[in-house]
Amino acid sequence: MYELGVVYRNIQRADAQVADKLAALGTSTVHEAMGRVGLMKTYMRPIYAGAQVSGTAVTVLLQPGDNWMLHVVAEQIRPGDIVVAALTTDNTDGFFGDLLATSFQARGARALVIDGGVRDVKTLTEMRFAVWSRAISSKGTVKATLGSVNIPVVCAGALVTPGDVIVADDDGVVCVPRAMASATLDAATKREANEGEKRAKLASGVLGLDMYKMREPLAAAGLKYID
Amino acid sequence: MYELGVVYRNIQRADAQVADKLAALGTSTVHEAMGRVGLMKTYMRPIYAGAQVSGTAVTVLLQPGDNWMLHVVAEQIRPGDIVVAALTTDNTDGFFGDLLATSFQARGARALVIDGGVRDVKTLTEMRFAVWSRAISSKGTVKATLGSVNIPVVCAGALVTPGDVIVADDDGVVCVPRAMASATLDAATKREANEGEKRAKLASGVLGLDMYKMREPLAAAGLKYID
Amino acid sequence: MYELGVVYRNIQRADAQVADKLAALGTSTVHEAMGRVGLMKTYMRPIYAGAQVSGTAVTVLLQPGDNWMLHVVAEQIRPGDIVVAALTTDNTDGFFGDLLATSFQARGARALVIDGGVRDVKTLTEMRFAVWSRAISSKGTVKATLGSVNIPVVCAGALVTPGDVIVADDDGVVCVPRAMASATLDAATKREANEGEKRAKLASGVLGLDMYKMREPLAAAGLKYID
Amino acid sequence: MYELGVVYRNIQRADAQVADKLAALGTSTVHEAMGRVGLMKTYMRPIYAGAQVSGTAVTVLLQPGDNWMLHVVAEQIRPGDIVVAALTTDNTDGFFGDLLATSFQARGARALVIDGGVRDVKTLTEMRFAVWSRAISSKGTVKATLGSVNIPVVCAGALVTPGDVIVADDDGVVCVPRAMASATLDAATKREANEGEKRAKLASGVLGLDMYKMREPLAAAGLKYID
Amino acid sequence: MYELGVVYRNIQRADAQVADKLAALGTSTVHEAMGRVGLMKTYMRPIYAGAQVSGTAVTVLLQPGDNWMLHVVAEQIRPGDIVVAALTTDNTDGFFGDLLATSFQARGARALVIDGGVRDVKTLTEMRFAVWSRAISSKGTVKATLGSVNIPVVCAGALVTPGDVIVADDDGVVCVPRAMASATLDAATKREANEGEKRAKLASGVLGLDMYKMREPLAAAGLKYID
Amino acid sequence: MYELGVVYRNIQRADAQVADKLAALGTSTVHEAMGRVGLMKTYMRPIYAGAQVSGTAVTVLLQPGDNWMLHVVAEQIRPGDIVVAALTTDNTDGFFGDLLATSFQARGARALVIDGGVRDVKTLTEMRFAVWSRAISSKGTVKATLGSVNIPVVCAGALVTPGDVIVADDDGVVCVPRAMASATLDAATKREANEGEKRAKLASGVLGLDMYKMREPLAAAGLKYID
Repeated sequence: MYELGVVYRNIQRADAQVADKLAALGTSTVHEAMGRVGLMKTYMRPIYAGAQVSGTAVTVLLQPGDNWMLHVVAEQIRPGDIVVAALTTDNTDGFFGDLLATSFQARGARALVIDGGVRDVKTLTEMRFAVWSRAISSKGTVKATLGSVNIPVVCAGALVTPGDVIVADDDGVVCVPRAMASATLDAATKREANEGEKRAKLASGVLGLDMYKMREPLAAAGLKYID
Repeated sequence: MYELGVVYRNIQRADAQVADKLAALGTSTVHEAMGRVGLMKTYMRPIYAGAQVSGTAVTVLLQPGDNWMLHVVAEQIRPGDIVVAALTTDNTDGFFGDLLATSFQARGARALVIDGGVRDVKTLTEMRFAVWSRAISSKGTVKATLGSVNIPVVCAGALVTPGDVIVADDDGVVCVPRAMASATLDAATKREANEGEKRAKLASGVLGLDMYKMREPLAAAGLKYID
Repeated sequence: MYELGVVYRNIQRADAQVADKLAALGTSTVHEAMGRVGLMKTYMRPIYAGAQVSGTAVTVLLQPGDNWMLHVVAEQIRPGDIVVAALTTDNTDGFFGDLLATSFQARGARALVIDGGVRDVKTLTEMRFAVWSRAISSKGTVKATLGSVNIPVVCAGALVTPGDVIVADDDGVVCVPRAMASATLDAATKREANEGEKRAKLASGVLGLDMYKMREPLAAAGLKYID
Repeated sequence: MYELGVVYRNIQRADAQVADKLAALGTSTVHEAMGRVGLMKTYMRPIYAGAQVSGTAVTVLLQPGDNWMLHVVAEQIRPGDIVVAALTTDNTDGFFGDLLATSFQARGARALVIDGGVRDVKTLTEMRFAVWSRAISSKGTVKATLGSVNIPVVCAGALVTPGDVIVADDDGVVCVPRAMASATLDAATKREANEGEKRAKLASGVLGLDMYKMREPLAAAGLKYID
Repeated sequence: MYELGVVYRNIQRADAQVADKLAALGTSTVHEAMGRVGLMKTYMRPIYAGAQVSGTAVTVLLQPGDNWMLHVVAEQIRPGDIVVAALTTDNTDGFFGDLLATSFQARGARALVIDGGVRDVKTLTEMRFAVWSRAISSKGTVKATLGSVNIPVVCAGALVTPGDVIVADDDGVVCVPRAMASATLDAATKREANEGEKRAKLASGVLGLDMYKMREPLAAAGLKYID
Repeated sequence: MYELGVVYRNIQRADAQVADKLAALGTSTVHEAMGRVGLMKTYMRPIYAGAQVSGTAVTVLLQPGDNWMLHVVAEQIRPGDIVVAALTTDNTDGFFGDLLATSFQARGARALVIDGGVRDVKTLTEMRFAVWSRAISSKGTVKATLGSVNIPVVCAGALVTPGDVIVADDDGVVCVPRAMASATLDAATKREANEGEKRAKLASGVLGLDMYKMREPLAAAGLKYID
């Protein structure tokens, strides 16, 4: 449950080196390495293709149609952070635009992940400020009601605790809990290492059926071939 | 309520110079300048990124799966117009393709805004004929049932009266009532003028909290910082 | 109804030359040529813009969250095929990524059409392996439950029988039954042939109202012009 | 476009007798009598089955997550009115519950039509206070930002001007413009009068094909029977 | 692919006795008995709770916003039939109301299953004419464009061939292919026979874990209990 | 992030007396008492109207199309519990039916809250086993892949920790964290106590404007009355 009207200033961030390295592995590999969990809903889409980032989460909880707390969270950003914005209810208003992006970028933020709408996407794209959002909307917001900063939030179906590592790319957004970041990096790196060899085999025409030795379990499950 | 089977030939268009100038300000600024109203639903998306237009609305009401009236509205287009197509019910068929776009472009239309589907989007993109639509669909339509041209319509949740100004970009589509176009241009221009200075301050690391003097009202609302 | 746990190895594919030629005509023309039927739901979108393909369908039925059968269908692919993946229920997990794409491409597949999610879309785009899907998702899948290969399936609302021709482009995905492929090619080619002349007329300012002789039927239907 | 922060106290209501009589005809007949227009989106559903009402519209525009203006509109209700609540953006919070319903009922309101959420539906059902809404939600709202009362609004896709007649039943919600209320009542009554005879014929086994003389136009359209 | 403008008068219906008996088993049991296939999308909902029917399918393909073919299909209904209405595109208009229901009932139809909207639901409920539909809508339709009768259709994601058995209840709608109706009845009856004993055991507190002997496979799959 | 393949047998449940008393207050009051947080998404609907329950949460995480873990969680149920089932991805299959309900009821469960589908709803309704679900579906599931029991889960957008209190009624589902259950009960009871007096005033015609002293803040916010 959410505590409202509070800003936690001291959060324990995941190790920066670990956080930095996860970007290159990508969300699909990271998500597999964690045991296929931690993924946000598929409606979270990047505003431009090709961005691939990772960083430590600072979180903010917003009220519908109200972006006041985005100004509050800006002060808590440290270089290498990704801002994760959750909402108390479904709402697609344009909470974030080029002015806030300028401020976030100046503070060292690498990206915004928001379970709501954003605007000025043309300018954001020119600035190369990466955003994953639920919607794009010109709709402006008010500054009237408090939310919170750096409390655990549910964003697009995923629990994000301040200091966790966020990985985001064209495939989606994954949250890696701080305590698991190092082990996840190891597991994901190992997965990645195997992929080159597999790719070469498959490219040469070897079938996954044979490479993964699936023919026997498929037969055991009852698969029948009919000519 | 809609009057069916009628074409209004004489509509009073907003001042062309005002209509033309609104494009450069963009939907988010224009929408704010109007007091945060007049925006179409966020499901209205451009078929290609980067288009930014404004113009005077000629409206058309379509029946589901029937694009007959798009041929009727073509004749009413004047240079500088944007066609706004509403539907009597939710329907995503491909009402509009490259042939109609050729005709609209020849008549001087700047764009189409349609609460339905369009097709031939690859060709439309090559032609640089801007379209904001609810969907993309190959599904063809019949020509069997009358709608109307140049009556007030509700398009994607926004009331559009013929002659109003339409502003559209990557953030969405806004309708500016004709009677408010001039005042909106003034207000939007003023907003825009302030943005450069704000952006510079934020880029230098000044916080919105300080620039907008939010610390006091936030404290008054009860915001607590916890170390 | 679906037969589960079977792989049909011998399917009768539509004529390869006919299948190849349909790509150039595009889904909107082909769909019209068939009498406006055979189109998949509009939620099926390409992972990158500009791909335009046709080929013969090999089909696969998948269980939710389970991509086992994609490995089985890989063996049944012949050069010129397009894999059509249907699901037993709505599910947007990432059933397909760059490794399977490498395998499919090595077997000669031209594209994947899947009523589910895919991942590694950045790599797939670099590989130029065309995919039309319901969603993009990092979510991995298991290999535990059988589906079937090369049975008739309903994919995104369209019935696809193995060997049918699939046509896909930026406008969507159409299925042309094998028995109708040749006649559809003829009809679509004829439609296309007329379009150049029409386009030139419309570009010169001639109205569809006149070119298609619509004024009389519109008046007969009761259309009224008001000055 | 919406004017914000205003309450119009004097609105011209449709004739009360006309407004009262439309309920009995139901939305489907009334909607047909108007030429098949004026219907709200189908996501507007009654909180309990069987309610069938009509009355004059008082309108209110709400901000997301903010029900302040529902208290303002309460004062403008007169016996026989139906409150129509539109929103400036999509939002499903629970704007309305049993306390406001008690107040509305005391003022003589017959129903609420709201393009948002409501709560306390069990109590509302016991009170027999009819509500058509987009959603049901426990989510409470704040009282911080102004909307307006008795301005024209777009509610669930339909334009509603204060004083129009609202008709609502299990099939949906229709808005009849004040100026057309009397003519619509006449047309709807006439439609209804014919239905008894038609029903008797159809119940006796006569086909619509014959009763409506459709066989000839169907054949003319090309319908073929195959044995 | 759909053939348009045709009515097949002679279809081979599933055995009436088999068709009749499937109702009592319900959709969930029948769907399991077929191997978990043949189910329509979950958006198909009954207009009133408690109806449970089965019957032989007569099919009709409708154009968006056009119910002409519902009058054509009425003539093809025989006692014991269920009308299955598919659409060429997504559309929620009210294609069917109390007059058509009177006609269908007079012809002996047991229900309507429609991938679109219906209206007059209060009257339909009073008539006890069962309908499963995608939506409820007052929106009327035109009679202008041909579809077809008794061709195979895809309705709400399921392939329905004329003469198949339709089973529908509060859980949804299932299509049983004619050729499998008898075997499905046997399998479903057998499933049902086992349920009484299972229910008694479970009611007495025996766990499914033990009754279905799941503890060993769960442990083999790696399940760990932590105290 | 989710730990997979584990069952926590010892969880600390909220005080039973507190848990029991929250039902009578209802979700809307409880949600307000917590500061307007903790609510599940509005797509969670009861399978029958009128149920109003509260109890302690035992949680289960399910894989798409797989209900194996529902049998595992059954053993962990104690009288007074409510089972909360989350999914690793969006899926509406029918995970739960009358047999599992019989077992859950025998173990003392008061209800099921599931972010997926259920079936046999007619029987569940007769049994008066309350269920809040995302969907109703006949679609059966397999038993092949592990999830977990009694780990913290995100269900329909709300974080639920085993032992928390769940409150559910016609308005939706709320999760009250165990540590806050007692304070929430006090706050909710206090809110409830005030409502009778308010209701009486409003019923007598007193306006909320006056009762809540809103006229001054509305004027301060700039509200204008126009005659």
